[in-house]
Amino acid sequence: MVAPLRVGIAGLGTVGAEVVGLIERQKRALSLRCGRGIRVVAVSARSKVKKRNVDLTGIAWAKNALAIATDPKIDVFVELMGGVGDPALSAIEAALRSGKSVVTANKALIAKHGSRLSALAEKHGGALNYEAAVGAAIPVIKTLREGLAGTDIDRVYGILNGTCNYILTRMEREGLSFAECLKDAQRLGYAEANPSFDVDGHDTAQKLAILASLAFGTKVNQSAVYVEGISSIAPEDLRAAQELGYRVKLLGVAVKTETGIEQRVHPTMVPRTSSIAQVMDVTNAVTIDGDGIPPITLVGPGAGGAATASAVVADIADIARGVRALPFGRPVAKLKVTTKAPMKRHEGGYYIRLMARDLAGTAATIATRLAEQKISIESIVQRHPDGTFDVDKPAGKSQPVPVILITYATTEDAVRRALHAVQQDRVITGKPQVIRIEKN
Amino acid sequence: MVAPLRVGIAGLGTVGAEVVGLIERQKRALSLRCGRGIRVVAVSARSKVKKRNVDLTGIAWAKNALAIATDPKIDVFVELMGGVGDPALSAIEAALRSGKSVVTANKALIAKHGSRLSALAEKHGGALNYEAAVGAAIPVIKTLREGLAGTDIDRVYGILNGTCNYILTRMEREGLSFAECLKDAQRLGYAEANPSFDVDGHDTAQKLAILASLAFGTKVNQSAVYVEGISSIAPEDLRAAQELGYRVKLLGVAVKTETGIEQRVHPTMVPRTSSIAQVMDVTNAVTIDGDGIPPITLVGPGAGGAATASAVVADIADIARGVRALPFGRPVAKLKVTTKAPMKRHEGGYYIRLMARDLAGTAATIATRLAEQKISIESIVQRHPDGTFDVDKPAGKSQPVPVILITYATTEDAVRRALHAVQQDRVITGKPQVIRIEKN
Repeated sequence: MVAPLRVGIAGLGTVGAEVVGLIERQKRALSLRCGRGIRVVAVSARSKVKKRNVDLTGIAWAKNALAIATDPKIDVFVELMGGVGDPALSAIEAALRSGKSVVTANKALIAKHGSRLSALAEKHGGALNYEAAVGAAIPVIKTLREGLAGTDIDRVYGILNGTCNYILTRMEREGLSFAECLKDAQRLGYAEANPSFDVDGHDTAQKLAILASLAFGTKVNQSAVYVEGISSIAPEDLRAAQELGYRVKLLGVAVKTETGIEQRVHPTMVPRTSSIAQVMDVTNAVTIDGDGIPPITLVGPGAGGAATASAVVADIADIARGVRALPFGRPVAKLKVTTKAPMKRHEGGYYIRLMARDLAGTAATIATRLAEQKISIESIVQRHPDGTFDVDKPAGKSQPVPVILITYATTEDAVRRALHAVQQDRVITGKPQVIRIEKN
Repeated sequence: MVAPLRVGIAGLGTVGAEVVGLIERQKRALSLRCGRGIRVVAVSARSKVKKRNVDLTGIAWAKNALAIATDPKIDVFVELMGGVGDPALSAIEAALRSGKSVVTANKALIAKHGSRLSALAEKHGGALNYEAAVGAAIPVIKTLREGLAGTDIDRVYGILNGTCNYILTRMEREGLSFAECLKDAQRLGYAEANPSFDVDGHDTAQKLAILASLAFGTKVNQSAVYVEGISSIAPEDLRAAQELGYRVKLLGVAVKTETGIEQRVHPTMVPRTSSIAQVMDVTNAVTIDGDGIPPITLVGPGAGGAATASAVVADIADIARGVRALPFGRPVAKLKVTTKAPMKRHEGGYYIRLMARDLAGTAATIATRLAEQKISIESIVQRHPDGTFDVDKPAGKSQPVPVILITYATTEDAVRRALHAVQQDRVITGKPQVIRIEKN
């Protein structure tokens, strides 16, 4: 029997406490699965006296994270403190330098320092596992790194932020505004007091950058992600989406193009019958398009103490079994550098909602401006104040009337030029709403 | 640089040829991911002259599978011949005995001989990987074996047979009969000339037995699975399901109960809004309920040359990286023995369709018989010959009229006794249709 794996955990919030409890409860199964025991030997946290729902008897209390990271009697350093910089970062660096393996749930840190830390892990022979950083218990990191190791990946996309999906779900179901739903999400603990990181798409962007690196063999680069959040989405967009056979989701999309890897986060219209459209409330999902094979979709909880702890413990179990996967699936020296794909080059269909001044010929003007940019229109619909739709028929009322256009595939550039011209024509008021359409 | 991993492949059908092609196309990526090359050095197949869409230049042609399995110049034996017995079985045994690792896509063989082969792999230090045996490219084996290694699993269930799901999808969409859809499936190559293995649920049962073993640490035991196929499903069942908010799927379900692991395959009504209900056509899906965490669902292609090859190559890549997972996640000696859970003990809600003789009081008689068995009725609906539904109102026509009942959770036993009594009462004609409901 091999000696037990000695684990030190820095950070005893909800996840940290769950990890300690799970390792204890699953002691026997883990030992069978790994061929050796897993034992939490040390923990650290800001407050030693705080009441926690876990038994810490027999576990040493370390002075701080660095003390665990550098303790020669510990094999694996588990970082559950969070934060993109110190103390988490320097503790992880110290642990890797000492040849320890590291497990972390810290997406921000992996998105920012992943390549550098990965190089350290490679050099010193430790693992750097971070399954919990994206999609919690959904095994998306393992799937991209190992399960699809032989498959050339064309695209990976998903719903990576539960807060945004919860807000969009409630807006659609109850016809509420973004602001109302956000307030509720905050009350229920699904959104932070400062919600910008979630609702403006930055959380999704960090996770997407990590997935893109694993899928395409590129250096993780969060700044290469084009980001747009959900705060501009109005109930009428969701209503229109429904009537047109779509649903609006905040997607992170990374796709191989002729000019490199395009990474983008923005509200997206997806076909209502697609797998991704069925993912509601706080649930997350990731779809992977491999060369020549139908899409694979992984759905599940993207957050929560137990779900996150599940992934952390699986990462520890891999280390106990002796597995040392390259953190990004390939040697860091071989990861390619990606640059930001300018969104003006994005190709696809578009949903456009305009407030048309009620002038005869508005639809014709809009259609002409789009035609000048060679944009083909799949449908143009004018919503009457009573909520009904009509095709190509002016409403005949004096206030602005919403006009909704669906275009066939075109480029971001063409859409922007056409809308600029329409604005110059003064046939619309306000800023047009533009939502990209992702087929299947 | 470690020497390349030398692979021998027995069987050059669609999957075998795809594996050879994929390893060649992905040569560079695989070598980066694994830290060493992967090279197909020998193949065998029944016909050497058959035209195949793959370049075999530089690959030795072995006399037969056994020659590959025992060749000391080969590291991994890949079995893609199929068949539950020889020559596949004895070749795999020989390969494992010689210390080689084995990769196979052969679910029938793993379901029948999995435990014994796993013991051989353990004894001689080789891997026995079979990701492709269930759900093709969907990484469900890896997820159960590694991704959820730290999580206590309560239930695993899924749509594991594309043929059945295709037939049920078309029956629902087009209102066709089972026989018509089966004929079409055969014409399109989705169903075999002898379709029994698929439509009677045996293929699903084999896959379920494998998943149950991984999920619950039991010896794989196909004969412990209760099996019922889809041939009795009628278009009116699918119509009724739709109106009641359900969809009918052939599910394989393995669930932990107080008396052991219950494994069953049967048509199931699932809530129309559930993830599993969205899985249409030949797509497969598996949902895993872990202790304390929301369900994780993996969706994707369950068959097809490229999808199966993707899983086979990932299994080979794991071996190249030096990973030797226990085939069923735990030592064979520690796997528990399961026995068949008698279906009379199954608890849940039921859909029951009866042909009621058109007598006043039929509904009352049925309701009384159910009440005697302490079965609570959620709804009782009588379908008029014009296709409309009515609650609790005799149709007043002279031919038998379908009556549809939805019960609250009850036991299989109680349902059988109640229906037996109803038949004795002579208020119905023919055999009642019974479909279990799985709430999630």
